[in-house]
Amino acid sequence: MAATYEHPRPAITVDIVIFAMDEEDLQVMLIQRGVAPFAGEWALPGGFVRVDETLDAAAARELREETGLSDLFLEQLYTFGDIRRDPRERVVTVAYYALVNLAGHAVQASTDARRAAWFSVNDVPNLAFDHKQIFEAALDRLRGKVRYQPIGFELLPEKFTLRQLQHLYEIVLNRPLDKRNFRKKVLGMGIIKETNEIETDVAHRAARLFRFDKKAYDRLTRRGFNFEI
Amino acid sequence: MAATYEHPRPAITVDIVIFAMDEEDLQVMLIQRGVAPFAGEWALPGGFVRVDETLDAAAARELREETGLSDLFLEQLYTFGDIRRDPRERVVTVAYYALVNLAGHAVQASTDARRAAWFSVNDVPNLAFDHKQIFEAALDRLRGKVRYQPIGFELLPEKFTLRQLQHLYEIVLNRPLDKRNFRKKVLGMGIIKETNEIETDVAHRAARLFRFDKKAYDRLTRRGFNFEI
Repeated sequence: MAATYEHPRPAITVDIVIFAMDEEDLQVMLIQRGVAPFAGEWALPGGFVRVDETLDAAAARELREETGLSDLFLEQLYTFGDIRRDPRERVVTVAYYALVNLAGHAVQASTDARRAAWFSVNDVPNLAFDHKQIFEAALDRLRGKVRYQPIGFELLPEKFTLRQLQHLYEIVLNRPLDKRNFRKKVLGMGIIKETNEIETDVAHRAARLFRFDKKAYDRLTRRGFNFEI
Repeated sequence: MAATYEHPRPAITVDIVIFAMDEEDLQVMLIQRGVAPFAGEWALPGGFVRVDETLDAAAARELREETGLSDLFLEQLYTFGDIRRDPRERVVTVAYYALVNLAGHAVQASTDARRAAWFSVNDVPNLAFDHKQIFEAALDRLRGKVRYQPIGFELLPEKFTLRQLQHLYEIVLNRPLDKRNFRKKVLGMGIIKETNEIETDVAHRAARLFRFDKKAYDRLTRRGFNFEI
């Protein structure tokens, strides 16, 4: 193919903000860099886009390499192109964010002999490059989006209690929610269904398990909704 | 600076979906291409990102070159990176959308001896590259966003009637709205203020002019709102 433009070109990378929910908190996966620049510092997983792969494919590949997971919620976030964001040269990065349900998967938190770890979103260290800004943009997007799309369910196991669902929303939105209002709102939306099962292995009284209604979920994802809680 | 990655790199462009509102309809600016590929076809304005300018700066420069305007609402939309979206070579484009108030500005609809024109969003011709897909993504974003951010006001003159405001929302959302509900909702949000003026040069009874309240507007832009109409 003929080159359209022979002037110097920025390099293009993808970086991924991988969120997961554990029992207590919303977590983000970080990688400790082995090489300069920023050697020893924590950073978002990511890498260069190959000339023969789409941006989505590059993000899915990086996600698979970093976590061993595929078929996750993975969405483009924003493209960051400050001129000096990489001290080596001009690099434009297309940022993505992914939502992982830790309960359903064994996540390998290490790859390429690099150190990888989950951090609470409330306790993220300094990050290399402009990755702190990218992380914050992803957290903002997640916080905004759970209010009008049911993407929060991606972070939960297949069957969950109303307590778990409320806890998830409290953690993502970073504020306490009224239990009665929350349950009324969620049940009224019609996107979750009661199962015949109750939770097991709990010290407190076992609660009913729910699962979400995929059809209602898809309808709401397309149409959007307003989860004012 | 040392190059980080010596493999073949995609080129990076910006493309801009420029929306404006005239008396009747929501419009989008298109450029007729003078050269191959797609010579003679309509396309979104755009061009290559220079290695020493940010993505936002590139988009603002293209917007200025195409319309003569600056200081407009200009927001990054999405980055499109399909491998064969440009037949010449791999080109990744960072798409932006801009909102122009035609009443307030004289827009030069021509530049570089190329033909530029406004098209109704309901009457957009075939477009070069994947520009139809980009245009549709921008229209979706605008339609989604006017429901939770007051960005629609960017398309109106400084002073406007409630009829104009309702017409704008009807055009953007592409459906009729109930006049009484609309007025109640808009006035209740507290983001517009009555002026002492009425419209001039109209055949019908002159209506009160309103302007928007910038402080309330900024507050709502930060916090978001839910304009369920």
